[in-house]
Amino acid sequence: MQEPQQHQIWTLAARPQGMVKHTDFRLQSSPIPACRDGQILVRVHYVSIDPAMRGWVNEGTTYIKGVELGATMRAFAVGEVVESKHSKFVVGNFVSGMFGVQQYALSDGTGIEIVHAASADALPVFIGALGMPGMTAYWGLLDKGHVKEGETVLVSGAAGAVGSVVGQIANIKGCRTIGIAGGTEKCAYLTRELGFDAAIDYKAENLVEGIRRAAPGGVDVYFDNVGGDTLDAALANLARGARVVICGAISQYNNANESGEPAPPQGPKNYMKIVTARGVINGIIVLDYFDRASEFRSQIQEWISAGKLTTKEHIVHNIEQFPSALLMLFRGENFGKLILKVS
Amino acid sequence: MQEPQQHQIWTLAARPQGMVKHTDFRLQSSPIPACRDGQILVRVHYVSIDPAMRGWVNEGTTYIKGVELGATMRAFAVGEVVESKHSKFVVGNFVSGMFGVQQYALSDGTGIEIVHAASADALPVFIGALGMPGMTAYWGLLDKGHVKEGETVLVSGAAGAVGSVVGQIANIKGCRTIGIAGGTEKCAYLTRELGFDAAIDYKAENLVEGIRRAAPGGVDVYFDNVGGDTLDAALANLARGARVVICGAISQYNNANESGEPAPPQGPKNYMKIVTARGVINGIIVLDYFDRASEFRSQIQEWISAGKLTTKEHIVHNIEQFPSALLMLFRGENFGKLILKVS
Repeated sequence: MQEPQQHQIWTLAARPQGMVKHTDFRLQSSPIPACRDGQILVRVHYVSIDPAMRGWVNEGTTYIKGVELGATMRAFAVGEVVESKHSKFVVGNFVSGMFGVQQYALSDGTGIEIVHAASADALPVFIGALGMPGMTAYWGLLDKGHVKEGETVLVSGAAGAVGSVVGQIANIKGCRTIGIAGGTEKCAYLTRELGFDAAIDYKAENLVEGIRRAAPGGVDVYFDNVGGDTLDAALANLARGARVVICGAISQYNNANESGEPAPPQGPKNYMKIVTARGVINGIIVLDYFDRASEFRSQIQEWISAGKLTTKEHIVHNIEQFPSALLMLFRGENFGKLILKVS
Repeated sequence: MQEPQQHQIWTLAARPQGMVKHTDFRLQSSPIPACRDGQILVRVHYVSIDPAMRGWVNEGTTYIKGVELGATMRAFAVGEVVESKHSKFVVGNFVSGMFGVQQYALSDGTGIEIVHAASADALPVFIGALGMPGMTAYWGLLDKGHVKEGETVLVSGAAGAVGSVVGQIANIKGCRTIGIAGGTEKCAYLTRELGFDAAIDYKAENLVEGIRRAAPGGVDVYFDNVGGDTLDAALANLARGARVVICGAISQYNNANESGEPAPPQGPKNYMKIVTARGVINGIIVLDYFDRASEFRSQIQEWISAGKLTTKEHIVHNIEQFPSALLMLFRGENFGKLILKVS
């Protein structure tokens, strides 16, 4: 009997204490699993490197259960069906789903979507602007932020996967758009390539003053990807009737107490500003919008085709680089949607 | 020429550093002012002692300008017109307005309302359940909290002027009502006299656990008067679709930095719970509802007459007691709406 071929898998070796470390994960070789009735075997091409991963490796359950120690690291990914014993899929289909950080994945089709890409090279955008980050941006801004033409929209993490789409949709909707990002290169990208009206470099200037200068009439919609002092600076600059959409808090996910256990984020000390501004704070959970995926995708696709929406992916090659890629994300070293090519 | 009679006035002597002190205020004697054309002279009977006073004595402007050093301390109050050169008022009218902490006040009628009380003894309720605290409770719960029959409502500072009305309105609306207060006496008052379904003594038990036990299905509406750890405990217990109405943060108003300057409140570290709960945080500013005062007042009056709404005032006698009364408020030593009788 022929030995099954091996593939590579990243598993969770330890619960990270504070910032993730290489040794929190383990690269293992494992036989490529056999495909049974009702299943598909997927060759994974690209894995999405997401801030949410930091929460998934903690113990316990928030909106989703934490990854077990020793289990394959959870990840959203795109790949290609290489074997199918499932009526809905045929070999050669491109598919997206929670395939994990590994080279091959078995699935019963639950939560798996067929992706209409021309070739494997065209897959990355399906985990970026046409994937969950884009969906988060789209529904967060429109359904939770209720942006209206002529309003001022501020977004943090503006050069990132979600933020860059938020800003461009705000532009399309006729808003004044301000992005917060780290470094002159990212800021120049926002204003020169993505059409933001202003960019604020949080590494170079005081955020409260920077926002005030860029939005003298105040911020109507603040879309928050980072939390911490950035959230407080935005709260200090709200216009009357402002909507704050909380999406993430990447600056806070690696907080730890003195024993190294995960510590809660810094609370926004300016939260009372929502009262004086007569505003609201709410949040976006993209899972709630999965049933409206086609509406979202056709609109984003139309904007991309019309040249109104630019996407940028930052691709890291080689599955071995997974922990390094995750660290890049938390250090803000990526430029565009961070993706790991594993095939 | 006859010497004008003297009356007593509390002025702001110093900007408080942290908790207010007696010496931050000065009791002065001053001639009772003369009434000119277009003015009324009001003999002040009762002064409202409010948490908001702590903000008014800070420098600068929030939703209202800070009291100047040396100026009469700002206060909402009720009194009686003793001289009128104003077409809208006659001697003997009971009136409410921002008369300050003093025994006589001159006014041009701006912001002054005529109060339909049978006698001076009936005035206190007009700065309690029928005044700003009641108005704050009514609109905060109904217009910002959007309570619906059968929902679970949690309120902090539940034995206080605003909280006690919030809980009773929630009861009238058919909600399950939970109050947070300090001490067994206040908690017994909530459940035995005001009809709360449950009371949690924050001095005696862990709030996160106490709320979880009282609201196993989670909190649909949280009305926050205190901020700090209490707000975090409520956020930890939100039901899906919860509304958090921020009214005040009395536990945080006397915060100071090492130099004694006013320090911001503790930010709610559990703020991301609003995202996973698919909830919203908003706030109530009672000024926004002044044009709907008669709608509010007739409804509250009807509930009081029908025995559905109980009011309680805690009256401190003698204008000299003003700083002591303010300290009582911040120490949670009052029981019911705190009022200073100055006449």
